[in-house]
Amino acid sequence: MTDAPRHRVVIIGGGFGGLYTAKALGGAAVDVTLIDKRNFHLFQPLLYQVATGGLSAGDISSPIRAILSRYRNVKVLMDEVITIDPQAKRVTLQNGELEYDTLIVATGVSHHYFGNDDWAAIAPGLKTVEDALEMRRRIFLAFEAAEKETDPEKRRAWLTFVVVGGGPTGVELAGALAELAYSTLKSDFRSINTSEARILLLEGMDRVLPPYPPDLSAAAADSLERLGVTVQTKTLVTKIADDVVTTKQGDAIEEIPARTILWAAGVKASAMGKVLADRAQAELDRVGRVMVAPDLSLPTHPDIFVVGDLAHYAHQGDKPLPGVAPVAMQQGSYVAKLIKARLAGKSIDPFRYRDYGSLAVIGRNAAVVDLKALRLTGLPAWLIWVFIHIYFLIEFDNKLLVMIQWGINYFTRKRGARLITGEEGDPAIAAAALPQKEMANV
Amino acid sequence: MTDAPRHRVVIIGGGFGGLYTAKALGGAAVDVTLIDKRNFHLFQPLLYQVATGGLSAGDISSPIRAILSRYRNVKVLMDEVITIDPQAKRVTLQNGELEYDTLIVATGVSHHYFGNDDWAAIAPGLKTVEDALEMRRRIFLAFEAAEKETDPEKRRAWLTFVVVGGGPTGVELAGALAELAYSTLKSDFRSINTSEARILLLEGMDRVLPPYPPDLSAAAADSLERLGVTVQTKTLVTKIADDVVTTKQGDAIEEIPARTILWAAGVKASAMGKVLADRAQAELDRVGRVMVAPDLSLPTHPDIFVVGDLAHYAHQGDKPLPGVAPVAMQQGSYVAKLIKARLAGKSIDPFRYRDYGSLAVIGRNAAVVDLKALRLTGLPAWLIWVFIHIYFLIEFDNKLLVMIQWGINYFTRKRGARLITGEEGDPAIAAAALPQKEMANV
Repeated sequence: MTDAPRHRVVIIGGGFGGLYTAKALGGAAVDVTLIDKRNFHLFQPLLYQVATGGLSAGDISSPIRAILSRYRNVKVLMDEVITIDPQAKRVTLQNGELEYDTLIVATGVSHHYFGNDDWAAIAPGLKTVEDALEMRRRIFLAFEAAEKETDPEKRRAWLTFVVVGGGPTGVELAGALAELAYSTLKSDFRSINTSEARILLLEGMDRVLPPYPPDLSAAAADSLERLGVTVQTKTLVTKIADDVVTTKQGDAIEEIPARTILWAAGVKASAMGKVLADRAQAELDRVGRVMVAPDLSLPTHPDIFVVGDLAHYAHQGDKPLPGVAPVAMQQGSYVAKLIKARLAGKSIDPFRYRDYGSLAVIGRNAAVVDLKALRLTGLPAWLIWVFIHIYFLIEFDNKLLVMIQWGINYFTRKRGARLITGEEGDPAIAAAALPQKEMANV
Repeated sequence: MTDAPRHRVVIIGGGFGGLYTAKALGGAAVDVTLIDKRNFHLFQPLLYQVATGGLSAGDISSPIRAILSRYRNVKVLMDEVITIDPQAKRVTLQNGELEYDTLIVATGVSHHYFGNDDWAAIAPGLKTVEDALEMRRRIFLAFEAAEKETDPEKRRAWLTFVVVGGGPTGVELAGALAELAYSTLKSDFRSINTSEARILLLEGMDRVLPPYPPDLSAAAADSLERLGVTVQTKTLVTKIADDVVTTKQGDAIEEIPARTILWAAGVKASAMGKVLADRAQAELDRVGRVMVAPDLSLPTHPDIFVVGDLAHYAHQGDKPLPGVAPVAMQQGSYVAKLIKARLAGKSIDPFRYRDYGSLAVIGRNAAVVDLKALRLTGLPAWLIWVFIHIYFLIEFDNKLLVMIQWGINYFTRKRGARLITGEEGDPAIAAAALPQKEMANV
């Protein structure tokens, strides 16, 4: 052993990619610093449950410090990265600077309104805890407003929920909304019948869950329809304004009056993508994700890696790898292994994603599972979905609790975490969705 | 049975007082409307657990509609009361009007800065979910800021937590902060030693928990000191500004640099007290609570009742009844009984509070219990405190869950719900506590 300075690894982002890199480097002969602007890791696959009152934000969040606490060579810093300098091998933070020998960027993606950024205030997306609480606030306020509204047309607009985007998030949101309206809330109101709520799922492609095999898409659409969701495929949203969603299906234009519009469509890369392009000559794809080499490094800078949703990995199959948690986890572990190999003077094979399959839940007893050898729908798929999601909450002290909460919700059909909070929120968003005169002080 | 219009009861407020009135009227031959500006009932006795990351807000909240769902004669309205007209027997809401035959006002109290309202932005109180999340944000941000701070004096100010007020809330907050700093967070940081955090509990009277018997106050102070809290009695706060708390203990003036100041001192009546004074000739006490007759009605208006923390009940003992949950629950049930008796042409005895005792928790294994015949401290008191609190979460689906969460927290000493969220929050509060230049983007 020598007293030579240890290799310094800086990881930006505490999502699945960053966290799995840090964990896999725990105990290794390197000094790791993980930077995140939040102090908690968020289990995003269950965020739709927070948005619909089934779980609390705390149930699916875990303090990054607590997760990494036992790795004495890993330091956590709550800060925001402003820029990087690949020549000086330096990261500039809001509060200081850090030098690195190897840099891992894992800052993920946010949602994207295809150039219609003004839609964001009307149709919130679902990426952060705050997004989920904003959705929850709007969903439950809509039922409260409908209960008070005497004009039948306006009441109908309050009871119309439009989910834009038929990927896993959109399918899960629409399914949970159906459960809420047609089951959980059924006896809670006196003036409205929540069963009259209308839940629309709009998808631009010809089927929901486009990345899945066609038969599973069909099964998902069937399950959704049985739950009461109206699924409209080949349907584009052309305008969102004045509590009306305008859609285009072929040549047919429709205007749907709706007070609650939830966005589950496009994604775009986080700001670090552009920083890497500007400062490290990284090449970006159409949505701003970073094109990486077969070992996940930047072709221009072998000491910089990109993992998780921000990485565009085009070296396996005919499409880039999907932006899902298993890809991020495997990429994180791979980069950790590669760093250790390099320090030992060895090399390893390029990254290869092992795809164990895809899952999406639709609602109570309904899910679709594509485990390659095995394709399931309905209750068996739902049970597998629940099991896998609980299993991967492995970072969380409250795994058992979430499972019990789930069990209770399942049997009672209740959703206890339906607090309407943070009325102030983003004033722009609040004002757009809830005109002062009507809803200001509820 | 006749088709005569049924007696209309309007209840303002969904805390313990309002909820217990509504439940006790469930199924009776009256039409009940419960109005609250929030859609959930909050179990305030456990709010300090949310503020310190032990529980999520959803764990101690329950949708008012769900609690009252099975009483078909009870309607819930999410709205805000603007004023009342006792002559026309009418309540004016933000969104409409309601007529009543009997009115129950149960809007509680908020905190009070003894004429120093500018302290509110620097030293938040603990009455609402938003208050608790703001406290949680400040507490965990303080540790994060200390970890980054290199100046020892500034770091010390970040690691100094001042709790103002030695009543149950102050004692519980200080105890939880001690557990957090000296146990939960111990291995989570690399630059600071959280055991160096200083937790001060300031109380103006000569002992903590002033309403309790002196020997229990002494036991509580002992337990707090053992946990590491510095208890200062006979200490008045004379100024809170510029991250410094100025105190006066006898003639000694002290300036304590502290970045986290939590307010657990005075209470003042909610705005409905003044409305009742202006419109219904109600008499108010020094803090704005409403003086009620022995049957909890207004002496001037026998069809208006005030229950819970907002009521000043001076007809039992030599002090007004304390503002605690059991008083509110018993008053709610009493008023329901009285309404039913009146409708049957009967009368009942004046209200009488049955005091089963007082409890306050201090920390792990430490509480004080005054059950009149039985006074306990330490572990037995703590077990009774836990049992009673879980028992009274009876309205909650998640009673079992909270108990398990508690058990897990107890054995692991972990606190998983320590999310720092809502950075935007109230801009005034955020700006006051966290000057832009230092903390804006953490």
